[in-house]
Amino acid sequence: MSFLLETSGFSPQTLALDETLFHTANGYIGVRANFEEGEPEGAKGVRGTYLNAFYDTHPIIHPEKLYGFPETGEKILNVSDVQIIRVRVDGEYLSLNSSNTMDFHRCLDMRKGLSCRDFIWKSRSGKKVRIEVKRLASFTRPEVFAIDYSLSALDPVEIRLESSVKGDVGNYYDPSDPRVSGHEFTALEVVDTSFSGNTISMTSRTKATGAYLWVQVDHSFRMRLSDINLSDPGPSEMSQDKGVARLSWNITMSPGDSFTLEKKAVFCDSLRHRDGFKYVKKVSDEISGLQFADLTREQEIYLEGFWMESGIGIEGDDHILKGLRFNLFHLLQSASGNPVASIPAKGLSGEGYEGHYFWDTEIYMLPFFLYTRPEIARNLLQYRYTILPEARRHARDLGHAKGAAYPWRTIAGRECSAYYPSGSAQYHINADIAYAVWRYWEATDDVDFILQYGAEILFETARIWLEIGNFSGSAFHINTVTGPDEYTCLVNNNYYTNRMAQKNLKTAIEIFELLKRSYPAVLSELGDRINLGKDEVGNWTKAAHAMVLPYDAELDMNPQDDSFLQKPVWDFKGTPEDKYPLLLHYHHMTLSRFQVCKQADTVLAYILLGGEGRESTLRNSFKYYESITTHDSSLSYAAFSILAAQLGDPDKAYEYFAETAALDLDDSHKNTRDGIHVANMGGAWLATVWGFGGFRPAGPIPSFSPRLPSKWKTLSFRIHYRASSIEVQAARDKVRLNLRVGPPIDVEVYGSRYRLESELIVSVDRA
Amino acid sequence: MSFLLETSGFSPQTLALDETLFHTANGYIGVRANFEEGEPEGAKGVRGTYLNAFYDTHPIIHPEKLYGFPETGEKILNVSDVQIIRVRVDGEYLSLNSSNTMDFHRCLDMRKGLSCRDFIWKSRSGKKVRIEVKRLASFTRPEVFAIDYSLSALDPVEIRLESSVKGDVGNYYDPSDPRVSGHEFTALEVVDTSFSGNTISMTSRTKATGAYLWVQVDHSFRMRLSDINLSDPGPSEMSQDKGVARLSWNITMSPGDSFTLEKKAVFCDSLRHRDGFKYVKKVSDEISGLQFADLTREQEIYLEGFWMESGIGIEGDDHILKGLRFNLFHLLQSASGNPVASIPAKGLSGEGYEGHYFWDTEIYMLPFFLYTRPEIARNLLQYRYTILPEARRHARDLGHAKGAAYPWRTIAGRECSAYYPSGSAQYHINADIAYAVWRYWEATDDVDFILQYGAEILFETARIWLEIGNFSGSAFHINTVTGPDEYTCLVNNNYYTNRMAQKNLKTAIEIFELLKRSYPAVLSELGDRINLGKDEVGNWTKAAHAMVLPYDAELDMNPQDDSFLQKPVWDFKGTPEDKYPLLLHYHHMTLSRFQVCKQADTVLAYILLGGEGRESTLRNSFKYYESITTHDSSLSYAAFSILAAQLGDPDKAYEYFAETAALDLDDSHKNTRDGIHVANMGGAWLATVWGFGGFRPAGPIPSFSPRLPSKWKTLSFRIHYRASSIEVQAARDKVRLNLRVGPPIDVEVYGSRYRLESELIVSVDRA
Repeated sequence: MSFLLETSGFSPQTLALDETLFHTANGYIGVRANFEEGEPEGAKGVRGTYLNAFYDTHPIIHPEKLYGFPETGEKILNVSDVQIIRVRVDGEYLSLNSSNTMDFHRCLDMRKGLSCRDFIWKSRSGKKVRIEVKRLASFTRPEVFAIDYSLSALDPVEIRLESSVKGDVGNYYDPSDPRVSGHEFTALEVVDTSFSGNTISMTSRTKATGAYLWVQVDHSFRMRLSDINLSDPGPSEMSQDKGVARLSWNITMSPGDSFTLEKKAVFCDSLRHRDGFKYVKKVSDEISGLQFADLTREQEIYLEGFWMESGIGIEGDDHILKGLRFNLFHLLQSASGNPVASIPAKGLSGEGYEGHYFWDTEIYMLPFFLYTRPEIARNLLQYRYTILPEARRHARDLGHAKGAAYPWRTIAGRECSAYYPSGSAQYHINADIAYAVWRYWEATDDVDFILQYGAEILFETARIWLEIGNFSGSAFHINTVTGPDEYTCLVNNNYYTNRMAQKNLKTAIEIFELLKRSYPAVLSELGDRINLGKDEVGNWTKAAHAMVLPYDAELDMNPQDDSFLQKPVWDFKGTPEDKYPLLLHYHHMTLSRFQVCKQADTVLAYILLGGEGRESTLRNSFKYYESITTHDSSLSYAAFSILAAQLGDPDKAYEYFAETAALDLDDSHKNTRDGIHVANMGGAWLATVWGFGGFRPAGPIPSFSPRLPSKWKTLSFRIHYRASSIEVQAARDKVRLNLRVGPPIDVEVYGSRYRLESELIVSVDRA
Repeated sequence: MSFLLETSGFSPQTLALDETLFHTANGYIGVRANFEEGEPEGAKGVRGTYLNAFYDTHPIIHPEKLYGFPETGEKILNVSDVQIIRVRVDGEYLSLNSSNTMDFHRCLDMRKGLSCRDFIWKSRSGKKVRIEVKRLASFTRPEVFAIDYSLSALDPVEIRLESSVKGDVGNYYDPSDPRVSGHEFTALEVVDTSFSGNTISMTSRTKATGAYLWVQVDHSFRMRLSDINLSDPGPSEMSQDKGVARLSWNITMSPGDSFTLEKKAVFCDSLRHRDGFKYVKKVSDEISGLQFADLTREQEIYLEGFWMESGIGIEGDDHILKGLRFNLFHLLQSASGNPVASIPAKGLSGEGYEGHYFWDTEIYMLPFFLYTRPEIARNLLQYRYTILPEARRHARDLGHAKGAAYPWRTIAGRECSAYYPSGSAQYHINADIAYAVWRYWEATDDVDFILQYGAEILFETARIWLEIGNFSGSAFHINTVTGPDEYTCLVNNNYYTNRMAQKNLKTAIEIFELLKRSYPAVLSELGDRINLGKDEVGNWTKAAHAMVLPYDAELDMNPQDDSFLQKPVWDFKGTPEDKYPLLLHYHHMTLSRFQVCKQADTVLAYILLGGEGRESTLRNSFKYYESITTHDSSLSYAAFSILAAQLGDPDKAYEYFAETAALDLDDSHKNTRDGIHVANMGGAWLATVWGFGGFRPAGPIPSFSPRLPSKWKTLSFRIHYRASSIEVQAARDKVRLNLRVGPPIDVEVYGSRYRLESELIVSVDRA
């Protein structure tokens, strides 16, 4: 049953990995799958609860600080811990270890949206209890996280139950592990705690930015005790100490007795709600009458829609299909439904990359949402609009008189990368965001979005190219930038950057013309507001037209930048396996002196924008870059997979795809403990749909040219395009399209145009 | 009298500047001209004593650390303070302020090697004393620093005199001043203090590296008191507290009485002497019979020789002449006479640049010593040999299998630059050191040096070009390096770097051939030791031959690097005055996108190695770079001045020269308070002798083509070349050469060959 992720057997060694894999999130709240009872003996996990975009700042100290280097960083916070439920059995704390824990079992039910855990525990005196835990972060009520904690007595026991909310929390750090922060970061302080019946309320504030967090946690019981008079364990004891608030109960149990504690937490923060204190109460009131089962039902209904619209079907490849489903589920768990936030690089599953947003969102993750749940894509783009003022400030810091320069990594908009050669120098992020706006506009026709947000983003991003580029002779150059491939920094005329910049300029011009034609008042207001000069659009046109796009006629391929081919090829034969990833074993400057790519760069430009004409160029470039790319970034495989599929080699495409589809599920990068690789998950969807599915949007007409790898019998997916929802079922011999929702729509299948009224079957020999 | 630097009037505002200008140093010890009595009220100085190369380490923390980034920095230490002499007049501390200090006067006597200070001070009750202080750091006894402190009573007074040695010292820091360190750095701890009669001995140790410092301070008196029984103020009181050791005396004085305290300090450290404790005693014993006047006499004799050999004469330009003498004196004060050290960027006058050595030493300062005191040049180059093992390690850190990569900034050899684009990326430092070795060899014929040190330096520096460069087609490229101009970082084929690398390779080949021919045993041993491969020298030859030297045929000039001319010229008109230096107001990456130079780069290559043939190229390049160079580095003016003189425009040369000759004397960069600009001082000598004097070495034959600016009547200087010392006197109408020392020598004057037997006069119309 490939909607279930399951493990059996208690394994302290994989604790931190499992905490990631089984984590519970809904785009706002993310809770690692920590044990309610506390960390098991001798195991090292990462206990954490995160709220998307809820951060605090810290100073960035440079040993040699130059002008314009960022001085303030942002970091997602580990917030108040509502997971704690401690149990004493006849006075002994229920703490898990390999000898006292039996029948341990975990699962993530991606159809129900639940994470579950159950086991039998034996006390030192030999008494046994059975524990069953379910938890969810509600997709329909983003502020709600709930735990359903059941205990069944297998022997007569005296139970003491303690449920806590711990406000005295800090971020994870480990001075001995270079991959994570080595410094303590405790940014939240509790400012108020109160009890009311079985409810704990806690208010905290961030130290640097003064943002507020409100948490309210309600407790209720379901009992099945032999003493029929007990429908409730009775009044609780309250206690409070050093930022921890606790409720305790004593319960006498006979064999066969059981009880369930439902712990429902509501989180709210001042980024989203000024008066969050009231909002927490409001949401708590709304769910006060709901049992955990009710929340589960809501969750199930929501996910039924999700899997129908966004799911993928593959016949013939169960492990990959399971990996893909896992990926899509976690994409959903990670994406903010509120424009104040986006998708952190590790989702809400861990503290890796400090909860920052990168260009990965727009290029690797947004397409999945755009073509299956466009309203989430809209939110993600609207987030970019909210940080536009900061992006303008960043452009000024960099010395640019006009336009915006989106930061390389950020939460609230500040550039948080302390190393500009692979940070701010990646100006392509501007073009990536503009590309996403263009694709959104193309796929949705959402003119309101363009008028309210899109045009301004497009104009402000386009302006930067005239700031950093220059005409030399008849050509427009963009110098001293870094493309997606971070192994070649600060180069001139990076092919990816220049192509994407060209598209950014062209889209800005197109939208400018649209506004001029149809929305002159909007254009006038916007032009005034951002002080758009008379000759700016003319210069965009000239620059787009004259853009340098490196091409080597002899090799008939696109070099990654002006001087790329002048450099020697990296000595791959002389590089031992243990020297990968290269960045961890070679100086960045030294890597820059060679032809060696960390990840798809020119290849990615082809995926996003197609070639410039000749397929031979794509073919030659593919081969060229294939031989010099290390894929030290997990984002690389998907791009190579898609291009291989496009070039008619689905089995080679499958080789790359196999590296990406189950990356977290198999922990193949050995760092899933720090969090999932959400961008890679989005890349896996792209590789499936854009690659094997051969889906390409093109103005109003979506096109499909599926090419299945040998192993697959069928591939099916849905595409939401404009007002229509199209179900695609590709087999080896035919492609079937069904119009599930919306009006008839023109489509292309293997290059031929059709009208999709309700069903269309195209046999593959027409390819 | 242009050997005297003098100021009159008490000026708390210029305290820190004067502490630099009047500082006392001898290449080992440097003592800022602080007041013995302590900082005057309301003034802010920098109290400091430094020992060349005596440092401690500190961790370098990078907010985003990549592989190979340096983790440990080195910092020169402010060491035990022996300057403290406090006076109480009738119980009141003698502390200077504007209302109690009269007839204040300071001088630096560059012929006597003394720094002096005198003033009259009035107590609150109106009693007056006169203070006269002299201090010296002995040029002949590098461990010795002495103070001659005289007090004359103008009224009847009770004097309490306290002389201290303060071991509890730290480096200067000021959290409010971004130019200096904002962090406390206290690296020395006192491990032993003892008294013996009027002698204080103190031993300290550095915290991180465990290096030792030994100081012994002797006190003696000269008295002229009306009570004829007093030839000594009597036994002292000893006291000791928190790292401060103090001797105190009480003296009753009548008007006309006076006394002088001679405080002689001997410094020694474990870098130079393993058993420094004994060495301090030895030196102390040697000078125990000497009075301050004796030390002064030694100083005067030494300086007589210095000025004779190294002095410059100019008729018609007194202020410039004074500035030049000031420069030469401070060069002497700054240069280590021991291969364990070199010349810090600020000499021993302050903590700016943390006491680090840069390429400035070899390119800007070493020529002055090489052509006037070659034994000091030898020491400076030998220092580079001592840090060769660290330079090899640095090359490995950067990923190079062979050769050495000299660090950008260092004391003991570690790369201490935390920002590689303008640090380690400046590989040209390897070529700069090789250049200096070549010039040393050329001017001295010192084959012993080549055999012992030079060949190894040349081979190891040459090897790096094959590591970072590569053949592409028929050309040899050096990619991703930074030239002297730090406004254009990480470029391909920087003209300066490539020309200097070519020379490095050629010199290495030449020395390889010499060894093969005449010293095969040395070559064999060295080749084995550094594992010199069979084809390496052949590859050096190929690379030198095929070296890319950017040339633009249309403009007939040398572009600074491959893509320099493709970039737009910086908007100088749109840049307000207060935005200079640009580096403090614009992002480094942004600057890199324009044609704008911080300092001479291509022009400097011409100065050091001449043009490649056509003078028109030099002329065009000069004009081109003149229009786009900001001279934000003080090192730039000298190079432009020299090229202007060489191109026959001595008056334009003088304009540049005027910016450099009195830079510290006039505090024209407003930061001499942090220390002198020693490299600029060396540049001023170069501009005078290499520029206006038209001196050029060429194999065994020195050549001279003086071109005086209009203002000057005559210019005279001496050149030590091979075994001969040549005095050059250039007037507007003739050049007179006198052979002062050594055998007859062939010379060229204005391009014609002569034999200099004793005197040679060439009239200028032959130019």
